[in-house]
Amino acid sequence: MISKKMEHMVANSSAIRAMFEEGTRMAKEFGKENVYDFSLGNPNVPAPKAVKAAIAELLEVEDPLVLHGYTNSNAGYGEVRDCVAKSLNERFGTAFSAKNILMTVGAAGGLNVILKALLNPGDEVITFAPYFGEYRSYVDNYDGILVEISPNTVDFQPKLDEFEEKITEKTKAVIVNTPNNPTGVVYSEATIQKLAEILVKKQKEYQTEIYLISDEPYRELAYDGVEVPYLTKYYANTIVGYSYSKSLSLPGERIGYLVIPDEVKDSETLISAANVANRILGFVNAPTLQQKVVEKCIGEKTDISFYDRNRETLYNGLRELGYECIKPQGAFYLFVKSPVANEKEFVAKAKEYHILIVPGSSFACPGYVRLAYCTSYETIVNSLPKFAEMAKEYGL
Amino acid sequence: MISKKMEHMVANSSAIRAMFEEGTRMAKEFGKENVYDFSLGNPNVPAPKAVKAAIAELLEVEDPLVLHGYTNSNAGYGEVRDCVAKSLNERFGTAFSAKNILMTVGAAGGLNVILKALLNPGDEVITFAPYFGEYRSYVDNYDGILVEISPNTVDFQPKLDEFEEKITEKTKAVIVNTPNNPTGVVYSEATIQKLAEILVKKQKEYQTEIYLISDEPYRELAYDGVEVPYLTKYYANTIVGYSYSKSLSLPGERIGYLVIPDEVKDSETLISAANVANRILGFVNAPTLQQKVVEKCIGEKTDISFYDRNRETLYNGLRELGYECIKPQGAFYLFVKSPVANEKEFVAKAKEYHILIVPGSSFACPGYVRLAYCTSYETIVNSLPKFAEMAKEYGL
Repeated sequence: MISKKMEHMVANSSAIRAMFEEGTRMAKEFGKENVYDFSLGNPNVPAPKAVKAAIAELLEVEDPLVLHGYTNSNAGYGEVRDCVAKSLNERFGTAFSAKNILMTVGAAGGLNVILKALLNPGDEVITFAPYFGEYRSYVDNYDGILVEISPNTVDFQPKLDEFEEKITEKTKAVIVNTPNNPTGVVYSEATIQKLAEILVKKQKEYQTEIYLISDEPYRELAYDGVEVPYLTKYYANTIVGYSYSKSLSLPGERIGYLVIPDEVKDSETLISAANVANRILGFVNAPTLQQKVVEKCIGEKTDISFYDRNRETLYNGLRELGYECIKPQGAFYLFVKSPVANEKEFVAKAKEYHILIVPGSSFACPGYVRLAYCTSYETIVNSLPKFAEMAKEYGL
Repeated sequence: MISKKMEHMVANSSAIRAMFEEGTRMAKEFGKENVYDFSLGNPNVPAPKAVKAAIAELLEVEDPLVLHGYTNSNAGYGEVRDCVAKSLNERFGTAFSAKNILMTVGAAGGLNVILKALLNPGDEVITFAPYFGEYRSYVDNYDGILVEISPNTVDFQPKLDEFEEKITEKTKAVIVNTPNNPTGVVYSEATIQKLAEILVKKQKEYQTEIYLISDEPYRELAYDGVEVPYLTKYYANTIVGYSYSKSLSLPGERIGYLVIPDEVKDSETLISAANVANRILGFVNAPTLQQKVVEKCIGEKTDISFYDRNRETLYNGLRELGYECIKPQGAFYLFVKSPVANEKEFVAKAKEYHILIVPGSSFACPGYVRLAYCTSYETIVNSLPKFAEMAKEYGL
């Protein structure tokens, strides 16, 4: 009855759904405080107070026909896009204007829009394992082929040799995600420069255009003062996808943007195509009230010290117990080596201890598990004795 | 550079964009009050006061982590879906529960979700001309083929004989839109019953399932006490797509829902597939704040008397001037016969009089034009002398 493509996806998603339902069941049976749910990337820091104030003010001063109405352009309100462009220019020394900004239904909406605009059936899109599993579906939505670069489990920086080998004349785009989900790794400037060099060389070799899509929902979550390079400055054909889900703790509101710089080849046509894609995919425009919230809260930031404390506590706690893990510099994930080869066994064992984690095979990197530490601090502290018991069981 | 599918669409959309920009230019040059813009379906009735009150209250009482967070299910908050189901059951005598409701990013999002869930490449989707032009893109997004039934220009009820002939073993879905954009026609109960009979017969003949998709953004806009039949009661394989864009004047907020009743064949699988489609197309979930607004405003209605006055004034005014047009029973559109065979000439002539209207060929019905009367009352009254001058020019 349903489409053939969806049959496979529904079968897979049932497993995740079953896991989620198990978590809900466990919380009911054992009490929420006795279940340590590290499975989801749902921020535990509330939206900045300025968000509430902005909405309250907009309700008072803005004409409801404008506040809740269709935007004149599918790209969003001109003044919001102008404000986003100026803020990026101030922060990163770029030269964007409103026309380079397309407000989107979160980063997931933005990625779908740009892939719809770019891909012909059979086009290849490269990404680096471990990667956010949804990339596979997004690329498949437009009959593209996801080509994955195997994980570098030493430091989880991208394997650029393999990358260079796997670029073909069919390579239309490359998706990078830094700070990274699921590893928390931030690509260094040297890495970005090398990656850009390879792309320039391969574009020349094949006489093609290869678009670098930078998926940046975790841009603002970087610790220890580490810099996250702004990729449009290193490679002309760069498109940025951003989301306020994490930076303003608004994941449910579905608000983000795409940046399509003038430097991108045929940028005007691509901007038009992205606008049309935003419309015909059914997004139409990003939710209007939240667009205006973005304008009013452009300088706001989430409380990163909250996540940083979680990061230090969980990372140090697990290391002391003998678990292997690199220290993440960004996002709110820890990618831990499974004490047994088949990490799904470890996931099952953890569940016995009421700890919910996600197997690395969901990110094309088996043998590891992902812990989302955007939980309460108490969850972290109280989970450590359970991890200790498991460490003992595994003889760490 | 952009995808081949998009090239054609970008070329087409440029024409509409040029028209829009022309309108903006005209408003600047001649003053907004001297331009009569009937081109867009953007409501001119503000959201009910209860919407503002609901948002203000939610800001005070709701935990921001819940109000702005990911919903546990991609289908939306359970209590919101439960509330929508109960409201439908009260109004239409149906028996839905939360599981049958999937909150969506407007009706456009909902249609994309259900078509993604259903269509294999080459599947046929039937709709009746004149129809909302976006249907063509939505079906094409999933490599379906839109099959159109020619318009019945006598009363714009669907041509059921032609419909019966055009159903094949490849027919996967039928989209109906009542009250209709662009004609304002409401399908009668007799029409719906006949349509359902044909579908039942053809399902049996071909041993297939044919899904009837009822696109209902204009359900609440029905005049003269006319009843809009609820289609799930007439045909088991019916899916409803709804939007609050018009009923609560929230088009920019992107909030609506799909109903997938238990009576639909393999409904559980289809519900799962629609959930996955909602996620992987990048919607993830319908905007959360607006979901909760829907719950609080479930009994609210837009001020239909405003549109009714516009309808009567414009319809009577144009008829008196000699224009041919059927009286719409719903929505906020008037579908007027062009005084010249090529309606694009009429559209161009109207522009000389600062009147902006949309050619019927955009709705697969050349020879007609669409006027969206969701404008201010003054726009209607002040446009009539201009229509009178044109009527004189055309010798009506």
